[in-house]
Amino acid sequence: MEGDPTLRLRVFDLNCWAIRYLSKRRQERVRLIGDTLRQEGFDLVLLQEVWSEQDYSDLKVKLGGCYPFSHYFRSGVIGSGLCVFSRFPILDTLLYQYSLNGYPYMLQHGDWFCGKSVGLGRCWHGGHNHFAPGSCQLHAEYCREKDAYLPHRLVQAWELAQFIRHTSKAADVVLLGGDLNMHPEDVGIRLLRGWTGLRDAFTEATRFEGCEDGCTLVPNNCFTVKTELLPFPLGIRIDYVLYKAVSSFTVKCEELKTTTGTAPGMDIPFSDHEAVMATLHIRRQGQAVGASLGTAEPTLADVVTEARTEVGVGLRAAQRQRYSTGRMAVLALLLLLLQAAAALGALAGLAAEQPFPKLSFSLLAFLAIGVLLLATGLHLFHTMEVKMLQGTEEQMRMALRALQERP
Amino acid sequence: MEGDPTLRLRVFDLNCWAIRYLSKRRQERVRLIGDTLRQEGFDLVLLQEVWSEQDYSDLKVKLGGCYPFSHYFRSGVIGSGLCVFSRFPILDTLLYQYSLNGYPYMLQHGDWFCGKSVGLGRCWHGGHNHFAPGSCQLHAEYCREKDAYLPHRLVQAWELAQFIRHTSKAADVVLLGGDLNMHPEDVGIRLLRGWTGLRDAFTEATRFEGCEDGCTLVPNNCFTVKTELLPFPLGIRIDYVLYKAVSSFTVKCEELKTTTGTAPGMDIPFSDHEAVMATLHIRRQGQAVGASLGTAEPTLADVVTEARTEVGVGLRAAQRQRYSTGRMAVLALLLLLLQAAAALGALAGLAAEQPFPKLSFSLLAFLAIGVLLLATGLHLFHTMEVKMLQGTEEQMRMALRALQERP
Repeated sequence: MEGDPTLRLRVFDLNCWAIRYLSKRRQERVRLIGDTLRQEGFDLVLLQEVWSEQDYSDLKVKLGGCYPFSHYFRSGVIGSGLCVFSRFPILDTLLYQYSLNGYPYMLQHGDWFCGKSVGLGRCWHGGHNHFAPGSCQLHAEYCREKDAYLPHRLVQAWELAQFIRHTSKAADVVLLGGDLNMHPEDVGIRLLRGWTGLRDAFTEATRFEGCEDGCTLVPNNCFTVKTELLPFPLGIRIDYVLYKAVSSFTVKCEELKTTTGTAPGMDIPFSDHEAVMATLHIRRQGQAVGASLGTAEPTLADVVTEARTEVGVGLRAAQRQRYSTGRMAVLALLLLLLQAAAALGALAGLAAEQPFPKLSFSLLAFLAIGVLLLATGLHLFHTMEVKMLQGTEEQMRMALRALQERP
Repeated sequence: MEGDPTLRLRVFDLNCWAIRYLSKRRQERVRLIGDTLRQEGFDLVLLQEVWSEQDYSDLKVKLGGCYPFSHYFRSGVIGSGLCVFSRFPILDTLLYQYSLNGYPYMLQHGDWFCGKSVGLGRCWHGGHNHFAPGSCQLHAEYCREKDAYLPHRLVQAWELAQFIRHTSKAADVVLLGGDLNMHPEDVGIRLLRGWTGLRDAFTEATRFEGCEDGCTLVPNNCFTVKTELLPFPLGIRIDYVLYKAVSSFTVKCEELKTTTGTAPGMDIPFSDHEAVMATLHIRRQGQAVGASLGTAEPTLADVVTEARTEVGVGLRAAQRQRYSTGRMAVLALLLLLLQAAAALGALAGLAAEQPFPKLSFSLLAFLAIGVLLLATGLHLFHTMEVKMLQGTEEQMRMALRALQERP
């Protein structure tokens, strides 16, 4: 880009669904992904759900020739699952872990253990030209009708947007690829796009080839759960490539492709998600363009208000949970104190004889201790949840004020 | 600054030590802090350890007239304790919570519950001029000779430095005030300054007035623990105002002051820490200056190497902890399985009679369940710790490579 004022950047994004012991035909698919990436020679590869570091290491060895630079983002108990492979040097990286990410006791959903994050790199292309590729994933949606995780996903979308706003000036072009677990019309994605000015490669692409409506979770992928897609016969679009140019550059999406249920020329898919492949055309401009927000500002204010309302609903639910777990802990403590008084009474000989059978007495005490510990832990957790939801609501209020009184 | 190319910015930084029920004469001191801030009329006030939101609200009401803009950063169970008051509009804020912050079971140290963070604002001064004030606090040092928290504090210093590097381009001037819990010559502060190019107001100040060597934890403050300061008869300097200009601006520190054991004109101090007050002179320059690192690069590489070695020591300790808690969990599980087998055997009538007294048998089972749960929780925690330490070590390795092959 130093001599030539234009650059064609080919980006590959995929949620790999590579969970050890759980994902079907994982090793075969990871090998397939590696082979394809090596043949196709993209410039940037943004992967999610690479939960096993061994899979990352295998890919790194295989791709070392064509993608000499890579980074695996570590977080949470299991990891973030995020990694980036690049043809250009990665100068440094930053991981931002969302403050809310589901509940540790929802073991069947498991999001809490993943440490969902956004991982941002800073790549150097030549001269003073940098671009910042990011890979991210938000909390999954398990039930669209009664989505208990919507407030958490909105907090994550907001934090992601704030993170992009504050970090984007460190590069000329920002690129974000990931499984956002939101449909294109959902409030979270409108918030993210509106508040950052990021543009959606699918809607901006000059040419498109792939699943209808750009869907990335489609019924004719053999790994998707068909019942979940019943209300959406074409599938849903939840994986995105988003971008914006920050300083004196413009970006256009020349072409966007998705896989269509199977990997090209194979009989199995890369993953239960389709891959998104974008060809971007980056051009240096004569003069600097100011950062612009994606949506007209009155509309943006509506989006922020809508998101804030949903966060408020989540806040009240979290406050109720905090209250009920606190009450449970107090009750368990009272029961323990009562038992201690009874035991002391019996020891001091106040009662003629021990009135309770010893076994059930101590079982009850252990039960009370168990409930006390559990309820206290949950109470602390919901206290944190309330704090973070309040913090986000407050930040959104501040954003609305800034939108109204924009200098 | 729009018309006038220079700006004098008066900054106040204080660790308020305002812990409900624990800090001595808290309400009196918070009132005193509020009164002084109102009289003195600083431009920016960066506070730490305001743990009670009620104290923040009281300050907000009192200071509303002279500091119309303020923000309280929420995180963790108790909160981050960080807040900012400003004469200039705060456009938006970003909170970054460090990935490691001590251990939840070290209740007597309590850092884990605080959600230690850095809170960054973006203030608008006029025209296109923005500055980003940040308030931060790192993990406390409880024993300098055998500092078990050094790796965690270094991870925090590194994350703080990366956060500043990635966000600083969003403003013309970056200002960081806080209790870093590190002496000026410690590796963490050299890392932070070297890797971000932040300059230390104390060493750069044209005029200085206050405690000798700029100390902020001094023996003649009636709230400090005298025994902790025995090896340092003058006190120690752990509170800092750091700054750097990013684009076409220069910043100079005209004057730095600290309080000297008591609040000005009073008989009690503001806090157990001394306040740091800096007067900065910000001037717009004709041409943009590139961001420069604070330390000559070979020295910086040495600092990163030193920090990486310490993080490696922490990593090995965390791996040992992960192993021993995992082993403990497995042993407890084996004991439970053994008991279950014995109980089933007794039920099936294999033994002539029940060989164990019921009470001690069930007590042992409860004990095993308790140990299993606790050890599993700790194992998960230390697994996360290992991941984050590995991640930081990897990032530092990448930084060293970038320093050696700097384009």
